[in-house]
Amino acid sequence: MPRLSQRAAALQESAIRKLDLTIARQTDVRFHRLNIGQPDVPTPEPLLDAIAAWRPKVVAYGPASGTMACREAAADYSRRWCPSLRAEDVAITTGGSEALLFAFTAICDPGDEILVPEPYYTNYNGFATVAGASIRPIPTRIEDGFALPDDDALDRYVTPRTRAFLFSNPGNPTGAVYPIEEVRRILAWASRRGLFVIADEVYRRIWYDAPPPSALEVDEHQDVVVVVDSLSKTWSACGLRLGMLMSRNAALMEKVERLGQARLGPQPLAQAVGEVAFSLPEHWYEDVRSTYRGRMDALVKGLSGVDGVRAVRPAGAFYLMLDLPVDDAEAFARFLVTDFRHEGESVAVAPGPGFYADPSSGRSQVRLAAVTAEEQLVRAAELLGRAVEAWRGR
Amino acid sequence: MPRLSQRAAALQESAIRKLDLTIARQTDVRFHRLNIGQPDVPTPEPLLDAIAAWRPKVVAYGPASGTMACREAAADYSRRWCPSLRAEDVAITTGGSEALLFAFTAICDPGDEILVPEPYYTNYNGFATVAGASIRPIPTRIEDGFALPDDDALDRYVTPRTRAFLFSNPGNPTGAVYPIEEVRRILAWASRRGLFVIADEVYRRIWYDAPPPSALEVDEHQDVVVVVDSLSKTWSACGLRLGMLMSRNAALMEKVERLGQARLGPQPLAQAVGEVAFSLPEHWYEDVRSTYRGRMDALVKGLSGVDGVRAVRPAGAFYLMLDLPVDDAEAFARFLVTDFRHEGESVAVAPGPGFYADPSSGRSQVRLAAVTAEEQLVRAAELLGRAVEAWRGR
Repeated sequence: MPRLSQRAAALQESAIRKLDLTIARQTDVRFHRLNIGQPDVPTPEPLLDAIAAWRPKVVAYGPASGTMACREAAADYSRRWCPSLRAEDVAITTGGSEALLFAFTAICDPGDEILVPEPYYTNYNGFATVAGASIRPIPTRIEDGFALPDDDALDRYVTPRTRAFLFSNPGNPTGAVYPIEEVRRILAWASRRGLFVIADEVYRRIWYDAPPPSALEVDEHQDVVVVVDSLSKTWSACGLRLGMLMSRNAALMEKVERLGQARLGPQPLAQAVGEVAFSLPEHWYEDVRSTYRGRMDALVKGLSGVDGVRAVRPAGAFYLMLDLPVDDAEAFARFLVTDFRHEGESVAVAPGPGFYADPSSGRSQVRLAAVTAEEQLVRAAELLGRAVEAWRGR
Repeated sequence: MPRLSQRAAALQESAIRKLDLTIARQTDVRFHRLNIGQPDVPTPEPLLDAIAAWRPKVVAYGPASGTMACREAAADYSRRWCPSLRAEDVAITTGGSEALLFAFTAICDPGDEILVPEPYYTNYNGFATVAGASIRPIPTRIEDGFALPDDDALDRYVTPRTRAFLFSNPGNPTGAVYPIEEVRRILAWASRRGLFVIADEVYRRIWYDAPPPSALEVDEHQDVVVVVDSLSKTWSACGLRLGMLMSRNAALMEKVERLGQARLGPQPLAQAVGEVAFSLPEHWYEDVRSTYRGRMDALVKGLSGVDGVRAVRPAGAFYLMLDLPVDDAEAFARFLVTDFRHEGESVAVAPGPGFYADPSSGRSQVRLAAVTAEEQLVRAAELLGRAVEAWRGR
């Protein structure tokens, strides 16, 4: 048999998915599935209505960077906080995933490096591998609220192959929110170092204290800014696969257009739905925030009574990173799925090492997603407490 | 401004798209648009009904390699000619485009080479560039019916970096159909040389004489076979973005699964439509073939009266590659769009050089797509004849 590529060999098997397969086989256990960021909030009815109403004679290709109607709607939505953004600054993609892949490919050649504050969203590794680039992690600590290092410390991570600084704001899995001053500092630093800044703002409308800023709001250094967004989380439409890449760097957007031509245009149907999503009134986002705020409060409160568990209440997104009294979070996550049961129930969590470049890190951490109703989250917190006890008592 | 990647710089601007922009600006001219493979055949009603009927509570992620229902339906469809194919041998992708990109990425590392009989589908270049690989063309000639070279001749194109042989069957843009003996020979040759064979079978159900075989039908060497298919052409659903990658090579399919995990699953809605598409009865395909056969006959007949035009009637797909009495097909294609008019009408064609690795080839060729009604194709042929005369008389 011919050999496969080395990069294919480097693609990590998802730890979350392995657990999912085990969960699927155990139909007699009721699992509280807090391991993946799949919202259970219903997709807004107007979006579903837009699907039902879409009936062209021929389901034809759309333009490479998206339909002008969808790009206009996305720009119009973004102008709520970034008044100068134009439709030409927006490219529609097949999910935020493709927007990340396009950004990586347009910026990096094989062998190039992307700096990412750690812990970070696992799939960044997959996109980097596909693009032939590598993620170079910048450690941040739960004790410091996952604060970013100062400029001098950042400098030490830059090599001749560094091309970009990538961060999510709010952070996945950390829930950390970086305020506008900090985003401005990162842009200025990156600009001095000749790096792009890729801001993953997929969770930006979900926050608990103050709204996270968009990197597009900063007045200066916009030529280094690439923003990734998606309908998946805020609009509970993960399966629609509609994302966007936004940048005022015209040279970059031209390359994104060509990457788009190579794969032909994104699905026009999803974009018709996107037009509707982008025109929802602001009170709709307030409702979503209120839902997740109630859940996060319930989850944090439920966990506060659990001995040895340290949780930093997130400032945004719907994840909670926990420090547990365990020394092997992957084994503990497996234990939850294969052994621990209480009254026929158990919990699924995402093990911490999956969010670190070096899987020997995060071994006492797990990530919970607040993607079920409040009372279920309270129950899940209780079960997690019992599981920690059971783990200790093995 | 930070610099962009070299591979981004290498992405060619689509000649077809440049012409399209010019066409869009000229609203006073009636263009017969035979330049792109966008069928005008209505999308089957059952597919549109499936869209309208799809209304989940939450538009959730689906599995990385596709929903089991869609993979089963695709395998069931493929078993019409390949009885042993299983759902596990099928991965659902975002269009045939993504299937090609996954195949390239799983097989090639940056710097690797893919052999492709030339002329070939332009977008192969884009996927290769994104994957950091390069296309190495194997010239075939319109005079020989685009026949593939023999084994000894093929050997001369293999280098230590060669990883795969990619061909479309039927050929785009050539319309050439390679019979089962020829496909078997290619598989045996590739297997001896340690290469994969990527068979692009997107046009396979559209043929005029004898049905083109699938590479999956050959009894031996299935470990080197990767087949790409899509709903775009046969089912007139380009904009649905539903494709598939099929292979009995389990190691390859595992890598495809991981590539799928990195970008999360393809859209479940499109897959619900796919299930319906794959269950259409065979007479539906006969109707599609009959439509394109009538069109191709009309187009070839219409062109037969045009002085200096040589057209080889295709054996499959819906393209016709023409040899014209012009020495710069790109300039001629521009002339059609910007200058030539007859009774307020003109024709758009795809210039030949776009289908060659070296754009100094194919300079007397253009590709026509039979994507309008018969009487319009007859009119387009007449206009093309007048345009050739006008071009000569400039």
